[in-house]
Amino acid sequence: MTLGRDELGHRSETVRRANLSAIVRALHEDGPLSRSDLVGRTGLTRSAIRALIGELAAGDLVRESPATLDGTPGRPSPLVQPDPEGAFALALEIAVDSLAAATVGLGGRVFDAIRTELAPGRTDVDDIVADLADLATSVLDRRPSPAGLAGVGVAVVGVVRRDGLVSMAPNLGWRDEALGERLAGALGTVVPMVFANEADLAALAEHRRGAARGVDDVVLVWGSVGVGGGLIVRGEPLTGAAGYSGEVGHLPVNPAGVACRCGSTGCWETEVGTGAVIRRAGYPAEGGREALEAVLRQAEEGSPRAIGALAETGRWLGIGLAGLINILNPRLVLIGGRLAPTYPFVRATLEAELDRRVLRAARQLVRVTPASLGLDAPLLGAAELALEPLLIDPAAWLRPRGVMTELESA
Amino acid sequence: MTLGRDELGHRSETVRRANLSAIVRALHEDGPLSRSDLVGRTGLTRSAIRALIGELAAGDLVRESPATLDGTPGRPSPLVQPDPEGAFALALEIAVDSLAAATVGLGGRVFDAIRTELAPGRTDVDDIVADLADLATSVLDRRPSPAGLAGVGVAVVGVVRRDGLVSMAPNLGWRDEALGERLAGALGTVVPMVFANEADLAALAEHRRGAARGVDDVVLVWGSVGVGGGLIVRGEPLTGAAGYSGEVGHLPVNPAGVACRCGSTGCWETEVGTGAVIRRAGYPAEGGREALEAVLRQAEEGSPRAIGALAETGRWLGIGLAGLINILNPRLVLIGGRLAPTYPFVRATLEAELDRRVLRAARQLVRVTPASLGLDAPLLGAAELALEPLLIDPAAWLRPRGVMTELESA
Repeated sequence: MTLGRDELGHRSETVRRANLSAIVRALHEDGPLSRSDLVGRTGLTRSAIRALIGELAAGDLVRESPATLDGTPGRPSPLVQPDPEGAFALALEIAVDSLAAATVGLGGRVFDAIRTELAPGRTDVDDIVADLADLATSVLDRRPSPAGLAGVGVAVVGVVRRDGLVSMAPNLGWRDEALGERLAGALGTVVPMVFANEADLAALAEHRRGAARGVDDVVLVWGSVGVGGGLIVRGEPLTGAAGYSGEVGHLPVNPAGVACRCGSTGCWETEVGTGAVIRRAGYPAEGGREALEAVLRQAEEGSPRAIGALAETGRWLGIGLAGLINILNPRLVLIGGRLAPTYPFVRATLEAELDRRVLRAARQLVRVTPASLGLDAPLLGAAELALEPLLIDPAAWLRPRGVMTELESA
Repeated sequence: MTLGRDELGHRSETVRRANLSAIVRALHEDGPLSRSDLVGRTGLTRSAIRALIGELAAGDLVRESPATLDGTPGRPSPLVQPDPEGAFALALEIAVDSLAAATVGLGGRVFDAIRTELAPGRTDVDDIVADLADLATSVLDRRPSPAGLAGVGVAVVGVVRRDGLVSMAPNLGWRDEALGERLAGALGTVVPMVFANEADLAALAEHRRGAARGVDDVVLVWGSVGVGGGLIVRGEPLTGAAGYSGEVGHLPVNPAGVACRCGSTGCWETEVGTGAVIRRAGYPAEGGREALEAVLRQAEEGSPRAIGALAETGRWLGIGLAGLINILNPRLVLIGGRLAPTYPFVRATLEAELDRRVLRAARQLVRVTPASLGLDAPLLGAAELALEPLLIDPAAWLRPRGVMTELESA
């Protein structure tokens, strides 16, 4: 083997993998696309696109559908899109009061999804792992080929490492639970499994497919019993030194305030978590989702007490957000999770606090809106996370399926 | 011109520029280095290193000094280092109570520096621009060749855009001052000029040459009359959507607190700025640097009142830092500026608040220490910023000096 050939071979294989990745990513994020779209987006020649699509189609990652006439002149170009019988991710979620599972294909298409209430008190890690495995089975069984499973992503309401070590999940009373190991055992799957915090994943999903699409500096506030945050910086999730960033619920906003589940006092979530909202409206703090929905209904019907409770929540939302905006200078703030539907009622007091507390230059740049993907955003983000290795190197996915290049077989 | 030649020529020129950049950056950040060190650091061959160093030496960017024997066996390798008569940056600073200028060469060597007190009330932008221009002249005149000036960096105590538009500088009473235009006029220089906030630049300097060297996720708190912050995320400064990030002094920590210069109430800097520290020790809040130094002296001598004032400051430092750590999950927090010397006296209460308020996973990872570069850190950071274009593309610097490659002259 001469140096020249090796170098050339090495380079062309690297280029091929990068080109396959560029096509699959474009289809995942913006698809379906015509071949001409792909030429424009990747800068590759038409013939290169044709060959690469051929490879991806042979590996069941994409298919070409007949083009529909769209009124523009010229020969219609067939549309390339992810193959619905090809690769998919299994997304799982441990939310504050429910568990969920979904199978999601390239392009973000949700094939099957199931969500089930988490009975109060059902917090044992073995029980939850068993429940999740059941949900996983029921969505996986509906897929035509289990071999299409490319990865598993898991959203967790808590502080969790990528490998599934849950440092803290106050809702469940977990500390240092090796969720990753147990879940891998229960699912018995060999594909990669990756874990992240629900708010971080909601931000990823909103950034890729929701209200934050195309925006590079984003703060998402995820309301639940607690309050989480997902931060996008320079177009990428901010993870911090070890993935524990974004715990905005534990921003101290009221040092003279009430006790927080974390052991501290006056954390932001003691003022803007669902417990605080419903307590202000006269419900017991443990009232949960039903009480929050009742408060929203009453506010819509004009109840001064409900409206006042939400306005006061908006004031505290604005106080914490002002700090986040002064620190991070985002272009967009999304109000998500259980807080999203409160937006019309918190908006005025929230914005007033921003006017008062955010430095002018940053204030002029930032916009606050509700998130757009609803309560499934963490589940959709878990799917995005699980699909990432496939997007980075689709060639590795093609290989075991018998598609071998000349170089690899040499 | 054939496509093949063009492509080859283009590629080799790109590679040459990247290699020159790699060498200059290595010498700037870690130099002086032997040729062997440079081989190890860049992955280039010994003969490539030799040729590139020749180019850089001909352009007065580096020089080779005779090696000193260091006790290791083998022929000593000569040391390559930045040429002290070559390129340099002019760094300027508008601090809270002083103005400063320095000439700084590659490698961070400070050739000349001058700092002068800013008389109280001297806040007119024209006066300050004239003062800065005088300081600049006095350091520039000491350089052997003014042609070596590669760029100008300016640190500003305020919210400032890269082009020198000062959105807000509460100390000076500035709002929307076009400092950049005026300073460019006064200096009459044609080299690029770039502006940034003092705390952001202090973080850059500490990250490159100080206590944060080699650490990728850093929060620097810069104490002054106000409190600024400089954030390093994934090894790079966090700028936010428009460079206005890091305004940690305006994190609301005490919504029932006192009025802040920014128009809000209970901002972090109302509790940890120098005014708050000295007020707690019985001095008028306007006492400034002298009062702070007196408080520190008294604390060292055991004064319970001074020690108590600093301990209470530490408590508030810990409250705000807890929020920053929960949001950003940094590995290192630096206490800098006027707060740095208070560290021994704020440490205990600060750490106690972190123990109480930071989520355990993030708490275990983070270390808090004083910054190491002192009050000149923003000035040194301004020099780093000004040298950046030279580090990115030293070839552009070599060209006007008559060093032309075969490809460029073709």
